Amino acid sequence: MKLVTYSAEAGDRVGVIDSEAGVVRDVSGLLPVGFGVIGVIEHWAELGEVLAANATTQPATPLHEVTLRAPIPRPRRNVFCVGKNYKAHVAEFGRSGYDTPSRSEELPQRPVVFSKATTSVTGPYDVVGSHPDVTAELDYEGELAVIIGRGGLGISRDDAFDHVWGYTIVNDVTARDVQRDHKQWLLGKSLDTHCPMGPYAVTADEITDVAALELETTVNGETRQLALVKDLIFDIPDLISTISGGITLEPGDVIATGTPAGVGIGFDPPQFLNSGDVVEVSISNLGKLRNRIQ
Amino acid sequence: MKLVTYSAEAGDRVGVIDSEAGVVRDVSGLLPVGFGVIGVIEHWAELGEVLAANATTQPATPLHEVTLRAPIPRPRRNVFCVGKNYKAHVAEFGRSGYDTPSRSEELPQRPVVFSKATTSVTGPYDVVGSHPDVTAELDYEGELAVIIGRGGLGISRDDAFDHVWGYTIVNDVTARDVQRDHKQWLLGKSLDTHCPMGPYAVTADEITDVAALELETTVNGETRQLALVKDLIFDIPDLISTISGGITLEPGDVIATGTPAGVGIGFDPPQFLNSGDVVEVSISNLGKLRNRIQ
Repeated sequence: MKLVTYSAEAGDRVGVIDSEAGVVRDVSGLLPVGFGVIGVIEHWAELGEVLAANATTQPATPLHEVTLRAPIPRPRRNVFCVGKNYKAHVAEFGRSGYDTPSRSEELPQRPVVFSKATTSVTGPYDVVGSHPDVTAELDYEGELAVIIGRGGLGISRDDAFDHVWGYTIVNDVTARDVQRDHKQWLLGKSLDTHCPMGPYAVTADEITDVAALELETTVNGETRQLALVKDLIFDIPDLISTISGGITLEPGDVIATGTPAGVGIGFDPPQFLNSGDVVEVSISNLGKLRNRIQ
Repeated sequence: MKLVTYSAEAGDRVGVIDSEAGVVRDVSGLLPVGFGVIGVIEHWAELGEVLAANATTQPATPLHEVTLRAPIPRPRRNVFCVGKNYKAHVAEFGRSGYDTPSRSEELPQRPVVFSKATTSVTGPYDVVGSHPDVTAELDYEGELAVIIGRGGLGISRDDAFDHVWGYTIVNDVTARDVQRDHKQWLLGKSLDTHCPMGPYAVTADEITDVAALELETTVNGETRQLALVKDLIFDIPDLISTISGGITLEPGDVIATGTPAGVGIGFDPPQFLNSGDVVEVSISNLGKLRNRIQ
């Protein structure tokens, strides 16, 4: 199932995508009042069946007529993110001069985990703000993101996929100068609109082999990143068991798993994003983000 | 005014401290249903007057009979935190070997900003979990925290204090081995119960000169940290203008401003926290945290 959040006059609606018909079914009427996608995920044991049985009878709108927001427009806390999680990207980041020199090019021994502020989340087709007062070095990072279903503390590698509700795509937009100058990455990763997410929240049952998913990022149609999820240094069970080792994961938590090689600072000279550029991030079965730079 | 959140059978209550009488006034009846301290802060323009005029007539309970939670038990997103923001602490952190070698001992040119996950927040007198499966190097960091009132983007230094609702105390408990091994600090700073907060959310009007506030941290009664807020490298207007440069600050956001010298890794050999240790953090006019290590 592909869930979406979309804007309507009376406020956000939760929708289920009917791909064959090319429509979104408004399923908000099947949910308790005030429930968004996070509520659905939190109560998936009951609501998943309700939606599966009844979505097709709900009001339909052609998909191209709705304005999609991020499937989780306002996460309950910052988005968990992982840095330096594809080998070739570690190398390009090291060579770029933007990482701390002592770490450059060495593979991380443990996952490098940071966060993006909730206010950075924006829709799959929204404009990405350029923040010219703060940064002159805007970059893209296409990433597979995991959405947590059942929460937990101390989740083992073996149990990790039992806690995965599904997947979505994130562009971990990064202000490289801010990332570098402030040492810790929160600010450089969190400027408003710098976390395009979506277009769908896709249930895990639609993905038979997550390792086989292919990710592609293009800028103005030119391929910049092309990789398979199986090339993650720390895979999804690693990430879930590591983060939940001391932090209770919760339903609706989003974990962006890291970006492959091909970001702007991987080029010499760096290829930063410019006003008007269009960045697309697509992952097999998960759809495509398409965001223009302000 | 000093606001608190405390536990009651029917759920959390919002209280106002009456220091002279030694009681907490239950002001939940003056608030819209479901409002916690964040709601009060968000609607302070109206509710501040309501509370000031009516708190003294509300039901009273002796302060020692209530169980205080953190004043903001569940922030709407991760707590903003600042690293390396007192000179003498920068030096001790550099010497300790826990910082990345290339940065050691040099003063930061820009604020080092990271976050603590929401689930790390715990009450002012709660037990701090030792997480022995994850860390063997538990440390304390007493800090002044700013609570944002009116939100905003691009807040200037000159306007910064107009956006401060008030203050509280935070112990930025840190798992040093996790902080070091994962490079970015989110995990090492975010273990469950590793952000004791409180005991009160104190309105800014009660603090005539925030720079004059004195912070003291003790472990089992022995003074470890003793500093004045005026010794911050980046002061409160710096921090608010820097963070809000590209991130919209919101009502109820908490910014922990950094810790002075005297943390456990500042000693040779390091003085990590042990089971049963009691850590107290006090700041003039803001009260005292008192947390035992599990």
